Amino acid sequence: MKFGIIGGGSWATALAKILTDNKNSIYWWMRSETSIKYILSRGHNPQYLSTVYFNTGLLHLTSDVSTLIKNSDCIIIAVPSAYADVALQELDKNIFQGKKIISAIKGILPEQNLLLNDYLAQHFDVELKNYFAILGPCHAEEIASEKLSYLTFSGIDQETTHDISTFFKTAYLNTVLNHDIYGVQFAATLKNIYALGAGIAHGLDYGDNFLSVLIANSADEMAGFLRKAGIKNVEVGTIEHNPITRNDPASGIRRETTNYAASVYLGDLLVTCYSLYSRNRTFGNMIGKGYSVKAAQLEMNMVAEGYNASRCMYFINQKIHAEIPIAETIYQILWQNMLPSEGFAKIEETLV
Amino acid sequence: MKFGIIGGGSWATALAKILTDNKNSIYWWMRSETSIKYILSRGHNPQYLSTVYFNTGLLHLTSDVSTLIKNSDCIIIAVPSAYADVALQELDKNIFQGKKIISAIKGILPEQNLLLNDYLAQHFDVELKNYFAILGPCHAEEIASEKLSYLTFSGIDQETTHDISTFFKTAYLNTVLNHDIYGVQFAATLKNIYALGAGIAHGLDYGDNFLSVLIANSADEMAGFLRKAGIKNVEVGTIEHNPITRNDPASGIRRETTNYAASVYLGDLLVTCYSLYSRNRTFGNMIGKGYSVKAAQLEMNMVAEGYNASRCMYFINQKIHAEIPIAETIYQILWQNMLPSEGFAKIEETLV
Repeated sequence: MKFGIIGGGSWATALAKILTDNKNSIYWWMRSETSIKYILSRGHNPQYLSTVYFNTGLLHLTSDVSTLIKNSDCIIIAVPSAYADVALQELDKNIFQGKKIISAIKGILPEQNLLLNDYLAQHFDVELKNYFAILGPCHAEEIASEKLSYLTFSGIDQETTHDISTFFKTAYLNTVLNHDIYGVQFAATLKNIYALGAGIAHGLDYGDNFLSVLIANSADEMAGFLRKAGIKNVEVGTIEHNPITRNDPASGIRRETTNYAASVYLGDLLVTCYSLYSRNRTFGNMIGKGYSVKAAQLEMNMVAEGYNASRCMYFINQKIHAEIPIAETIYQILWQNMLPSEGFAKIEETLV
Repeated sequence: MKFGIIGGGSWATALAKILTDNKNSIYWWMRSETSIKYILSRGHNPQYLSTVYFNTGLLHLTSDVSTLIKNSDCIIIAVPSAYADVALQELDKNIFQGKKIISAIKGILPEQNLLLNDYLAQHFDVELKNYFAILGPCHAEEIASEKLSYLTFSGIDQETTHDISTFFKTAYLNTVLNHDIYGVQFAATLKNIYALGAGIAHGLDYGDNFLSVLIANSADEMAGFLRKAGIKNVEVGTIEHNPITRNDPASGIRRETTNYAASVYLGDLLVTCYSLYSRNRTFGNMIGKGYSVKAAQLEMNMVAEGYNASRCMYFINQKIHAEIPIAETIYQILWQNMLPSEGFAKIEETLV
């Protein structure tokens, strides 16, 4: 399998490191010609994870997406979810035929309010069996410093999911197999909302006791949503639910079977909620302290993922009808001018 | 109901604050006559939560346990689990007849390897229907500063559990009802083991990505144990499992129905694992850094709860036969001279 990575940010750079550490020659797209020249001449990305040095002999850098796609079997899309549409919209409708697409996007395309697989199905006729997602609790900085991390590879074609994962297994990266392709993507979106909520709670001066209750109840709310919205409830003729399969240490294969306490669900929620430096946490903290959304965005000069995510999930849940009072209240605080203190007085009532 | 509290530490002091904030006159036992005199003359406990001032008109302080028990309907036992036996062993075998006992002990009696209810049944013929537990993610310091917290009241007699909880509901304390009396006590024990494990991981220089995977998998392991060991599998003729009952905000009653993401299970695990200042975390960190158990204990001048807990749960699980590889490996590291790095290499293989 030949891999191509679309994206020049820190997560794309981490994935390029993993694949080239395994001696894979890769195509790598980024918009900036300056960055491309810099990487080729100096061996590292000037803007992201700049401590990571590459064997440039393994890198085919390009600023033309079509070139990358034509030369790759597996295309990893690793741009921020808000930019995926811009990066892909000019491409030929048939360009992804015969290719495997791997999403490394953490969230829903906000303009379209779609998961990437649904966007690709609409615009490029990509079938779900050719679509995979790499997700899990994985700060790119810890990949850069080779701290042991776990990434989950999800796809309904279990054999190919496993084949893809083998290219990523390294001394510092363990791989987990999963086939709940909708669930893992929704979880990656929801966790940003709950992390933003944890930030608001902190800004409102709640303590650690309350925070742990809020995050535990958020985990439960997320699991409740995923039970209704995950792959089990999606019409996919080919999927065969495997029985409880244990890890097989001999072959190095580890599987989770829609266990909502697994790293791709609960682990990712925890690392995001308890990270003191995340944008969601910082943004939420400002909202809790009384900043307006506009003022917080200007102050931070960026958008926290949970902000758009709360709106996306609010509308998606109009069809799913899961009980998600925490996520919905955060939507109301951010988008419908509900006072944070009033919203949390409501949330307090739902917690156990 | 007249309450008596046995114990003079920070958690006993927090419970005394809650009950007296609700204008309940209470009996309060502590060993130290000096502390008793100090509290009566100065209005606060000199050693624990010293910022909490009491209405001393509501306090009947005594250093005689029998006096307290005779004058109370509900006896709250809030001494460290290792001292419960010492505090109670001289008492008359029938002294608890007609009384309700409320455990505020977080863990198993280490010498006897028994939950407090089983100890009380053996030594004082206390029936399970007269036994209750107060547990949940609740640092006493945050009760002292009146940060909103949630405590779970567990008992198989649901009506009395509810009645007891009403004495504790305050502006800063929400109460949750539960009847999984074995499960909540095992959870309170297991969480200390997992927090100690998180400390070892930190000492071994794993990063935040790994820590979130470890804690998420610990949550799953705990739920797996509780499914086998919780009240559902204990012979109690009187219990009737209530169907999924939602909170009733009108009456202020909130229930959880053996939902392992609730605050008393997952919430307590999170607050313990993510608390940087906990003894379990500090102790584990030293073990991970290469200290022997003996050296770590001497250095800290105290025992981390998770140390004894790992041994207790190891032996208890010989009967339950749950799969608890994380907890068992921590037992082997602490009690059987397994190298921390070797133990964690084993744990790594089980994580998803």
